[in-house]
Amino acid sequence: MSHTIRVTVWNENRHERNPNHPARRVYPEGMHTAIANYLASLPGIETRTATLDEPEHGLTEDVLAATDVLTWWGHVAHAEVQDVVVDRVQARVLNGMGLICLHSAHFSKIFRRLMGTTCNLKWRDVGEKERLWVMEHGHPIVEGLGEYFELPQEEMYGEPFDIPAPDTLVFVSWFQGGEVFRSGCCYTRGQGRIFYFCPGHETYPTYYDQNVLRVIGNAVRWAAPVAEPTRVFGNSKPLEPL
Amino acid sequence: MSHTIRVTVWNENRHERNPNHPARRVYPEGMHTAIANYLASLPGIETRTATLDEPEHGLTEDVLAATDVLTWWGHVAHAEVQDVVVDRVQARVLNGMGLICLHSAHFSKIFRRLMGTTCNLKWRDVGEKERLWVMEHGHPIVEGLGEYFELPQEEMYGEPFDIPAPDTLVFVSWFQGGEVFRSGCCYTRGQGRIFYFCPGHETYPTYYDQNVLRVIGNAVRWAAPVAEPTRVFGNSKPLEPL
Amino acid sequence: MSHTIRVTVWNENRHERNPNHPARRVYPEGMHTAIANYLASLPGIETRTATLDEPEHGLTEDVLAATDVLTWWGHVAHAEVQDVVVDRVQARVLNGMGLICLHSAHFSKIFRRLMGTTCNLKWRDVGEKERLWVMEHGHPIVEGLGEYFELPQEEMYGEPFDIPAPDTLVFVSWFQGGEVFRSGCCYTRGQGRIFYFCPGHETYPTYYDQNVLRVIGNAVRWAAPVAEPTRVFGNSKPLEPL
Amino acid sequence: MSHTIRVTVWNENRHERNPNHPARRVYPEGMHTAIANYLASLPGIETRTATLDEPEHGLTEDVLAATDVLTWWGHVAHAEVQDVVVDRVQARVLNGMGLICLHSAHFSKIFRRLMGTTCNLKWRDVGEKERLWVMEHGHPIVEGLGEYFELPQEEMYGEPFDIPAPDTLVFVSWFQGGEVFRSGCCYTRGQGRIFYFCPGHETYPTYYDQNVLRVIGNAVRWAAPVAEPTRVFGNSKPLEPL
Repeated sequence: MSHTIRVTVWNENRHERNPNHPARRVYPEGMHTAIANYLASLPGIETRTATLDEPEHGLTEDVLAATDVLTWWGHVAHAEVQDVVVDRVQARVLNGMGLICLHSAHFSKIFRRLMGTTCNLKWRDVGEKERLWVMEHGHPIVEGLGEYFELPQEEMYGEPFDIPAPDTLVFVSWFQGGEVFRSGCCYTRGQGRIFYFCPGHETYPTYYDQNVLRVIGNAVRWAAPVAEPTRVFGNSKPLEPL
Repeated sequence: MSHTIRVTVWNENRHERNPNHPARRVYPEGMHTAIANYLASLPGIETRTATLDEPEHGLTEDVLAATDVLTWWGHVAHAEVQDVVVDRVQARVLNGMGLICLHSAHFSKIFRRLMGTTCNLKWRDVGEKERLWVMEHGHPIVEGLGEYFELPQEEMYGEPFDIPAPDTLVFVSWFQGGEVFRSGCCYTRGQGRIFYFCPGHETYPTYYDQNVLRVIGNAVRWAAPVAEPTRVFGNSKPLEPL
Repeated sequence: MSHTIRVTVWNENRHERNPNHPARRVYPEGMHTAIANYLASLPGIETRTATLDEPEHGLTEDVLAATDVLTWWGHVAHAEVQDVVVDRVQARVLNGMGLICLHSAHFSKIFRRLMGTTCNLKWRDVGEKERLWVMEHGHPIVEGLGEYFELPQEEMYGEPFDIPAPDTLVFVSWFQGGEVFRSGCCYTRGQGRIFYFCPGHETYPTYYDQNVLRVIGNAVRWAAPVAEPTRVFGNSKPLEPL
Repeated sequence: MSHTIRVTVWNENRHERNPNHPARRVYPEGMHTAIANYLASLPGIETRTATLDEPEHGLTEDVLAATDVLTWWGHVAHAEVQDVVVDRVQARVLNGMGLICLHSAHFSKIFRRLMGTTCNLKWRDVGEKERLWVMEHGHPIVEGLGEYFELPQEEMYGEPFDIPAPDTLVFVSWFQGGEVFRSGCCYTRGQGRIFYFCPGHETYPTYYDQNVLRVIGNAVRWAAPVAEPTRVFGNSKPLEPL
């Protein structure tokens, strides 16, 4: 409980490096920098960042071993993430590392791998209003929020969202254009905790929004691993006489 | 997160005051004292106790308002708990207070009220072995445990256990006589978190067992309320033009 | 599977008998009649109705014993339902009878009793549009529907809805005024299955809507009891040598 | 409801064709034949079989398109199942086909793919007693059973079982040697329903046991697809004016 939580903020970081892409104006240093700066400002959290174009996407065995919670944003280059790295991240999650998948990371290899489904959804990018309603009022991830919060402009993500039913459904979003979406979803897989959080289209200043950042910070604390019991698999002697 | 958690340890405290009951030898100061002593030894937790025969069972509005987590043990006198106090505890749980129901508290008015079912079960008291297996290895309630722990002598509680399917099933017990039991069950009701934990027959020294105490301590931290968003019920103006 | 499902359609039936209430024009024979007529038109279902002002509210031991699924609509007279009848219905649900709670039955004694929470919610009656989105596309309750359906005018029910997280969340509603609502919720309690379904304000012709009726019919089939194993509670001999 | 359910019973079928393997004596025509014979005896079910060594493992697009529910048994040759067939089965499940994974199919590619976890577990094959306790008494899969049933000799499978928490936990097994196991687990993934069922080591006559067969038959009915709403993914026009 009193340990520092070591967060690695991962970002595809392609839109922001494209001089012609509007994301560059919103996040000149990349979305990962905005998220990491916020998290680093919280007590008991230390952050590093990693991006797609680093060797091994910045996610070596050593980095993952020293990561308690990994956040993930990807969009146009999901296919470029190497399977060997996806294997490695999956194994680390199942052994206890937290994983927070943001926005278009719904279609990342790692999220699809852990969910077992297509993770497909509806979408529309016209800058409409999103209102995120809290479903689970006692949950640590909503600590300090009101009963809902709004984003004046976001990409619509709508149902059907082809995911397993969440272990805990934390947010449901209302969109101006008529859709709803399960926008905050908790899962446990192996010893790891996973949170999917909808907001964060690259052309809107979503990762400067105080409510969005608060949710990400709360989720990091929620997803941080506890001291892990050793799971013992395989052939096993009887504990009782037979 | 950094706030002190205020725990009220409630006990029926009848067996232990009966000079002819074996519980008196095991818990001369009552089970509540054993549990409260342990919890008080943990950093960031302060405890008080309350018992059935105090006025209002020791659970006045003021006490409950100053309680973050309530633990409950009852057995022979469930019917003596006044409905007005049950109403009060239920309302406080739904507003965020944690509740930990121990052993025969499965049949307490407050647990049945919150579950909506009979909470009936199988039982047998012959001092057989219970082995509690961890089902949910990443859960805060099992922090620091091994993959199972044993109690050399306990009362058997067996399925069917007439409860709603737990939100999270943390333990399943194996009993020597041939039964299994969902022995650690998490629920959220309203803004409050509830944990049912099976061990603790009054004639065995269960509440001195280090694993049992660790689970109770972990559960207290898990069940402590977060800063609560204001839930707004009732007639409500539109947020959008109609 | 091949047995006839015996449904009792229960209705408070007060609004519809009031000559000055708009519900009378919409449902001159009562909402129960509209619902029962539809169900009776389905193969393998036989129906009866029962209303508040009948002796024992029409829910005698004999009626309940001969009921596989009970549907419930109530609004202004929840408090007039006798506790002894609520006890009886609760016991019958826990022993396997299905229960379908419609619209304002969220505040019925029987639903609150089975849920353990206040079942409070937001509401607004201005005749706005409700769009019910399917969350669980493989579920028997949505058989034959599209991915959503709309009601041009309904009462808004909004979150927070103070219920236990549903075992299965089947529908989430979008409301024109800006709210969302978990509008189709499945629960198992004891051996009984419970479905809460949001639509059905008394002044709108909701119970003539083909999608709403289809959902109710599907829910009746889903909630019908299976051949019940005998649950054995209480003191129990060991199954293995000790 | 009245449609015939088309079941494909898939089997690795290697042990049974090995003249030196004890499975051959127990299942001279293969486990698939024992299972298919039972299912074919039920009204409203028609069966075919498919095995690993057939072209495309007997699971062509045409076969899968004509399969409502697929049962799967594999053990020593999981790795020989081609990924292209696993992809095909996964896609078909997400589009509504039921899948019943038996015993050592916990480690099949298809089950691991759909779960997202290792699906690892404890095991021991000494022919000990397994007692399967019903957890969910109102569930269609336990229709017609008692509160538990026993298998005099089975392979022990024990916790930890590295699976996502089941949507519905139907059975928990007690093993003579001291372990427990979540031995009947329901999942929905996409529009498909999945049931994992523990019993069935190849050297014991488990698939002649009347309770085991009844469970498999019930599971087939439970997993059969309903008439599917069309899920619409991708870019989507607003349903409301913006």
